[in-house]
Amino acid sequence: MQIIKTVAEMQMISAQIKKSGQTIGFVPTMGALHNGHLSLFDKARQKADVAIASIFVNPTQFGPNEDYEKYPRTLEADSEAAIKHNIDYIFIPSVQEMYPEGYSTYVNIKNITEVVEGIKRPGHFNGVGVVLTKLFNIVAPDYAFFGQKDYQQTLVVKQLVKDLNIPVEIFVEPTVRLENGLAMSSRNKYLSEEERERATIIYKSLIEAKAAIQEGIKNRLELVKIVTNKLNKEPKIKIDYVCVALADSLKEVDQFKSNDNIVILIAAYMGNTRLIDNMLLTII
Amino acid sequence: MQIIKTVAEMQMISAQIKKSGQTIGFVPTMGALHNGHLSLFDKARQKADVAIASIFVNPTQFGPNEDYEKYPRTLEADSEAAIKHNIDYIFIPSVQEMYPEGYSTYVNIKNITEVVEGIKRPGHFNGVGVVLTKLFNIVAPDYAFFGQKDYQQTLVVKQLVKDLNIPVEIFVEPTVRLENGLAMSSRNKYLSEEERERATIIYKSLIEAKAAIQEGIKNRLELVKIVTNKLNKEPKIKIDYVCVALADSLKEVDQFKSNDNIVILIAAYMGNTRLIDNMLLTII
Repeated sequence: MQIIKTVAEMQMISAQIKKSGQTIGFVPTMGALHNGHLSLFDKARQKADVAIASIFVNPTQFGPNEDYEKYPRTLEADSEAAIKHNIDYIFIPSVQEMYPEGYSTYVNIKNITEVVEGIKRPGHFNGVGVVLTKLFNIVAPDYAFFGQKDYQQTLVVKQLVKDLNIPVEIFVEPTVRLENGLAMSSRNKYLSEEERERATIIYKSLIEAKAAIQEGIKNRLELVKIVTNKLNKEPKIKIDYVCVALADSLKEVDQFKSNDNIVILIAAYMGNTRLIDNMLLTII
Repeated sequence: MQIIKTVAEMQMISAQIKKSGQTIGFVPTMGALHNGHLSLFDKARQKADVAIASIFVNPTQFGPNEDYEKYPRTLEADSEAAIKHNIDYIFIPSVQEMYPEGYSTYVNIKNITEVVEGIKRPGHFNGVGVVLTKLFNIVAPDYAFFGQKDYQQTLVVKQLVKDLNIPVEIFVEPTVRLENGLAMSSRNKYLSEEERERATIIYKSLIEAKAAIQEGIKNRLELVKIVTNKLNKEPKIKIDYVCVALADSLKEVDQFKSNDNIVILIAAYMGNTRLIDNMLLTII
């Protein structure tokens, strides 16, 4: 495995690979790699001739009061994990390399970014949009892999790629969970053992909604209430939002119809740590 | 020469070309081709293995009171000209193909767009930014060719390409002029024979500034005055702006220094037709 630190070198390598007729599979990450990321590495490895990952804690997708500074950085362990999962190149640029002095270009994605997470984290998805546009131009992937855990992000990425005609195919892979159900996240590092156990209420509330849907419930507010009530049973959890919406558009219609594909999105605080999770379901 | 109308087909072709190890030279245009465009076609033909041009009157770069509707569209003549200049492919998408329903992504370029033409045509350069980002993703050029006539646009394109790490090299080619000095422009079609003659005052005023610089003038407002006075000698011309600035940044410093590279930018109306022109000069 090779570590690449500059845009110029990464672009030279990816151009070489493309010229040789090989395909590139790409997993963009912010590091602090966990099994969720590693399952994406394996998918990229499987699907493409050359597997490339990036590790870049992107400042432009953090709000002023968010955890950019303290976001976990575990580069050595990350490199070892990437080697173990047969990644060919990891691209680890500095902030200066990605946003040099005089940087002036912004990508704004409307509509799908203007609900749920986009309201709670203004500017977040624009930061995601710009860094991915840059990374796609640098790595030139044929395929890129994202985790379903950041569900709204996967919709944003698909919109971005479609609108800007970026020649990459997007794959969304299932959320990887601990045995107790907690969705894997780099931010779980902020949690104590006890908090991690308590945070499983998030997954349990999604399971409860799934059961309700299987019993025939189609009303959005009823589903929201089921999830909210369950979450509120855990006193250490503070709900940020519970959103039940059509999976493609995130439209919060009042009454779902049979065969509607929906998503339940949760954001909640455990102490100071903000956790998100979701589940895709089909109305019966 | 092949005419390509869909993004999917153009992307398939450009991916094929890249895989074959050939280089792509690209000239994006809005059609109504004149000798200025054709000189860019020749450069692309010379420099690259495969020469691609696009013809797309991009609605997002026109203001609500501008000439989008009446912008000249001369597709048949354009195709013939492209054939004559050995262009391999022309990409002619519809508006619907470029901005389908649900289109939601915008590119905003700051700083260099916030002066001169950017003030007079708010939103113009963002429209240019988004369409070029799309076209670069669709055509995947190694080299792209622009005319110096749209001088500020060439700075915007360079900023965009640098910031988003678009793997394309930008070439800026000299403005092509009629024998009388008038810069070639698709909008010259709006002018009568007489107006075209009168509009040569724009070039003449640039030449007058050049002479003044050769005589040692370094003061910005003096240069602005020389150009303005000359333009005002033509009663049918209405000045929109005269800007004298550092060529790289468009900073309007009061007093230039020896060896400063500067640009003189003019926008002026001849009747209802807005014309622009410029000259790059070095302070002695």
